[in-house]
Amino acid sequence: MNANDAQTGSTAMKGGGYYSLSTVGAKDVIDGAGDLVIRALEAHLQSGNGKDAFTIADMGCADGGTSLDMIHRVVGQVRKHDPQRPIRLIYEDQPTNDYNALFQNVRATQPDGNSLATMPDVYWYAAPVSFYEQVLPAGTLNLGFSATAMHWLSAKPCEISNHVQAVGAQGRELEAFAEQGRKDWERILSCRASELAPEGRMIIVNFCRDESGQYLGNTGGINMFDIFRNLWENFVREDVITADEFERMTLPQYYNCVEEFKAPFEAPDGVAHLAGLRLEHIETRVVPCPYAARFHSGEWDAPTFAHFYIPTLRSWTESTFFSGLSESRPAEDRHAIIERYYNAYEALVAHEPEQHSMDYVHAYMVIRKVG
Amino acid sequence: MNANDAQTGSTAMKGGGYYSLSTVGAKDVIDGAGDLVIRALEAHLQSGNGKDAFTIADMGCADGGTSLDMIHRVVGQVRKHDPQRPIRLIYEDQPTNDYNALFQNVRATQPDGNSLATMPDVYWYAAPVSFYEQVLPAGTLNLGFSATAMHWLSAKPCEISNHVQAVGAQGRELEAFAEQGRKDWERILSCRASELAPEGRMIIVNFCRDESGQYLGNTGGINMFDIFRNLWENFVREDVITADEFERMTLPQYYNCVEEFKAPFEAPDGVAHLAGLRLEHIETRVVPCPYAARFHSGEWDAPTFAHFYIPTLRSWTESTFFSGLSESRPAEDRHAIIERYYNAYEALVAHEPEQHSMDYVHAYMVIRKVG
Repeated sequence: MNANDAQTGSTAMKGGGYYSLSTVGAKDVIDGAGDLVIRALEAHLQSGNGKDAFTIADMGCADGGTSLDMIHRVVGQVRKHDPQRPIRLIYEDQPTNDYNALFQNVRATQPDGNSLATMPDVYWYAAPVSFYEQVLPAGTLNLGFSATAMHWLSAKPCEISNHVQAVGAQGRELEAFAEQGRKDWERILSCRASELAPEGRMIIVNFCRDESGQYLGNTGGINMFDIFRNLWENFVREDVITADEFERMTLPQYYNCVEEFKAPFEAPDGVAHLAGLRLEHIETRVVPCPYAARFHSGEWDAPTFAHFYIPTLRSWTESTFFSGLSESRPAEDRHAIIERYYNAYEALVAHEPEQHSMDYVHAYMVIRKVG
Repeated sequence: MNANDAQTGSTAMKGGGYYSLSTVGAKDVIDGAGDLVIRALEAHLQSGNGKDAFTIADMGCADGGTSLDMIHRVVGQVRKHDPQRPIRLIYEDQPTNDYNALFQNVRATQPDGNSLATMPDVYWYAAPVSFYEQVLPAGTLNLGFSATAMHWLSAKPCEISNHVQAVGAQGRELEAFAEQGRKDWERILSCRASELAPEGRMIIVNFCRDESGQYLGNTGGINMFDIFRNLWENFVREDVITADEFERMTLPQYYNCVEEFKAPFEAPDGVAHLAGLRLEHIETRVVPCPYAARFHSGEWDAPTFAHFYIPTLRSWTESTFFSGLSESRPAEDRHAIIERYYNAYEALVAHEPEQHSMDYVHAYMVIRKVG
C-alpha cells in the first residue's frame, strides 16, 4: 500500500493549475536553489559516474509549474556537459495529484522556444508514487530534487486538540508529531539512498523551523497558523462547527528543525549515514511573501492583497480542513463552511493588512551518496 | 511537436474506465497473445542480455485495463527467471489519455492479491508521449507490447469523400491513406528499433486486413464500417448534417495487410531491416465479437445485445465523429446529433441482431532486435 493513501483526500493539492498560480513564492524558493543545484550537478558530473541515461527526479512535483525553469536549467547543463547522453526525467507525486496539469506544464513551450517534450533525447515520465516509496530502480538516480513537499507526513499520528498544525502542538501530541516526523524523514532518506547512483546528489528544500524559531508565516507580525486556529475556534463559539470538527482539523505536517534534519546523518549509526548518504550542506533561508511585498510596495491596496493572498493559503489547507468537517453534513453545507472560513480570513487581512504575510522558511540541503 | 497533436481531440478515447468496460473483446485479443509474449520473453531472457532493470513498455495502453493480466504474467515470468532484477514498467499513450483511470487500474489489487503498485522492485511510470516518438533511451527496452493501437495514423492525409474509414476509400484517397500508413508504420518501427535492447523483443497486435480480405466488423454479415457510413449518409439526406460534415467524418486510421506489415523487414534496404529489426512471426487471427456471441448463445435478447454492443463501437468513433460536426453548431446540438446517431445504430442492431458483430481481425507479430 502506498503510505500516503491513509491521508489521500486530506492532503491532495487543489488541481487545475491552481497550485502554481497561487504559489509565486514557491517558485521563488526553487529559483533560489538554482545555484546549489547546479554546483551539486557539476560535482556529480565531474565524478564521471555512469554512462547510462542521466536520471533526474522531481519528488513531490505537484503540477510541475514551479520547478520547470529549474529543470530546464538542469537539463541544459547536463546537455552542455555531455551532448550525447540521454536524459530521463521522472516527475513524482501522489496518485491523486493533478497529472493533466503536470503534463500540460511539461509540454508547454518556454520563452526560449524549448519544451521538455520536444528536446531530443529527453525522456520524461510521471510516477504516481509517493516519496515514502522507492520510485526508481536501485542506483539509477543521478540528481534528485524536492521542494516544499516533504513536510507532509505519511500519516497523522494523532489529532492536535488545540491547534491545526504541529507548530502549535504541546506535550504528548507534540511528541507524537516529532516522532512521526523523525520516522518519516528516515524513511524518505532510506528510499532515496537506494535510488541514488554512486556520487549522485539530492537537493532537498524543505519547510523548517529555523535557528531563531521562525517558520512559514511566523517571521514577525501575526503567526499565520494561530490565525488558522483562531478563526476555526471562532466558528466553534459561533456553533458553525463542533469541537470534534475543530480537533480533526489537523494538518498532517511536521517542520523539522536543522538538528532534526541532521540527526540521521550525524551519528555513525544514523540511518542515512549507514546507507551511504552525507549531508554536504544545510542552511536555512527566509523567502519573503510575494503577496505582502506587493502590498508594502504600494502596488496593491489592502483588498487586492487580501484577494490574492488567501488562495495561496487555501491551496494547501482546504482539503484537510474540508475533510475535518463531519460527513453527516451535506457536502453543500461543508463547502459553504469552507467558503465562509476563507472569507473570514480574507476580511481579516483586508482589515489589518500590515500584520499578514506568509514568508517561507526553508532548509536547503545538499545530500551526496558516497561512490 | 508530438505527431499526434494534429489529431488530438479527434482520436482521444472516452475516459473514465469506459474503454475497458466496453472492450471485453480487446482483452480477449490480448489474452490470446499471451503465449507468444511469454515465448518471446523467454527467448530474450535466454540471450542473457543486460543486468539493468528489465524494461517493459505497453504502447498505446489506454486505461491499462485490457492488458493488466498479461502484464502481470510477464512481470511474474521475469521475476521467476531472475528474482533480483528490478523491473521498470512504462505505460505509454497520448497526452490526452485518461491517466487517472490508468493509475487506478495499475494500482488495483488482482484476485491473487498482487498489485503492480506494491510488488517489490517493480517501478512503473506513465509516459504521455505517442508511439510516433521515441519514448525510451536507446537500447533500454527489453520487451515491448502493443495491442489494437497502431492503426491510428499520426495524421489524416485527406478526407475520405464517400466513406468514414480507409477500408471504404478509393482511388487517390485510398493511395493517400496507404502511403500515410506506410510512412507511419516505418516511423513506429524506427522509434522502436532505437529503443530496443540487443535481442529485445516486441509483440505487436495490430488491426489488419487479413489474407481473405476480412477486417474489423467485416467477417461475413453486414460490413460495420458501411453501416457507420450509411447511417451518416441518411443524416445528410434528412438534413441533420451537411455534406461537408459527412466528408469530415473520416477516421484517421489505416489497416495494413500482411504484405504491408512485412514490407519494411523484407527488402535488404527496408527501414526496419536496416535498423536491425527482424520479423520473427506474423499471423492473422479473428477473435469473435463477445457481444454477438452472447446474443447467438441466447444469453442476451436483441435489445440487450444492441444496448451493450453500441458502447464498444462508440468508444473509439465518437470523438472523431463529434469533431467532424461543424463548430458553428452549439455544442449542445452537436451532442444531440451524436446521441441520435448511436441511437439509430442501436435501433438497427435491435431490429436485425443476427446481421451484426464486431469480430476483431488482427495481425500478431513478434519482432526481434538483433544483438
